[in-house]
Amino acid sequence: MTFRYAVSAICVALLAVSANAGRKRNPGIEAQDARAIKAVLDGQVEAWNRRDLEGFMSGYWRSERLTFYSGATKTSGWQATMDRYRSRYQSEGREMGHLDFSDQQLEMLGPRAALVRGRWRLKTTSTESGGLFTLIFRKFDDGWKIVHDHTGSA
Amino acid sequence: MTFRYAVSAICVALLAVSANAGRKRNPGIEAQDARAIKAVLDGQVEAWNRRDLEGFMSGYWRSERLTFYSGATKTSGWQATMDRYRSRYQSEGREMGHLDFSDQQLEMLGPRAALVRGRWRLKTTSTESGGLFTLIFRKFDDGWKIVHDHTGSA
Repeated sequence: MTFRYAVSAICVALLAVSANAGRKRNPGIEAQDARAIKAVLDGQVEAWNRRDLEGFMSGYWRSERLTFYSGATKTSGWQATMDRYRSRYQSEGREMGHLDFSDQQLEMLGPRAALVRGRWRLKTTSTESGGLFTLIFRKFDDGWKIVHDHTGSA
Repeated sequence: MTFRYAVSAICVALLAVSANAGRKRNPGIEAQDARAIKAVLDGQVEAWNRRDLEGFMSGYWRSERLTFYSGATKTSGWQATMDRYRSRYQSEGREMGHLDFSDQQLEMLGPRAALVRGRWRLKTTSTESGGLFTLIFRKFDDGWKIVHDHTGSA
């Protein structure tokens, strides 16, 4: 009987450790995820500034379920978001300008989801615009992607 | 020896079940969380429409770390958010009007986080305004609360 109790106690202890591991994540993995998300954002800015809209768009989830909110306009799907960017920044008489992000704050929302708050600024030869953004990232097999973007302008 | 192997096998099986429970959540719990979040939003609309700003604000995380983005303005903290609402909707000559939310889409982002996308509309005796919102909820010991609100207006 004593042996059986000891084994039960070990089982309970192992289960407790396992449950705890599920709740408190490995800080190493979290730092790795944070770096991966930061790399997506840096990659977007670099792509934009070399006028590579496809590269910029690779930060977004290539899905019909991607959502992009800007002002009162809701754009649904990767392709529609791409088309919106193209018509606003690559059509005749338009220019992409120089983009930068600042005040970025990353918050993990779970093992496979994160929130990034920040501020964007875009300078063209004649205008300067900017505003706040809220990005929701999800982790997919091919990495972290933006699944929802809410961008406001000043 | 045989008995010890059997016990080890049971331990491994229990750990596997436990680990799996951590990954694939109980759909019953998820539905319960969705109902709880919906109740927070419904409670906010009801509170607003009876001019109960404190009741409306009880849907927000009572923390300095709450963030509220509206247009180009970033408000940090529960109290500052409350003050902003009070000066915009309860100061002299202002009215709260009638609020409603529509097109709400709830997405769980993890066991303790959720995203709600939606549209708001506010009618006063003389004006009608509205726009899109993005809300991030986190689950606390006292329930689900909004930790980040990005609200745009048309």
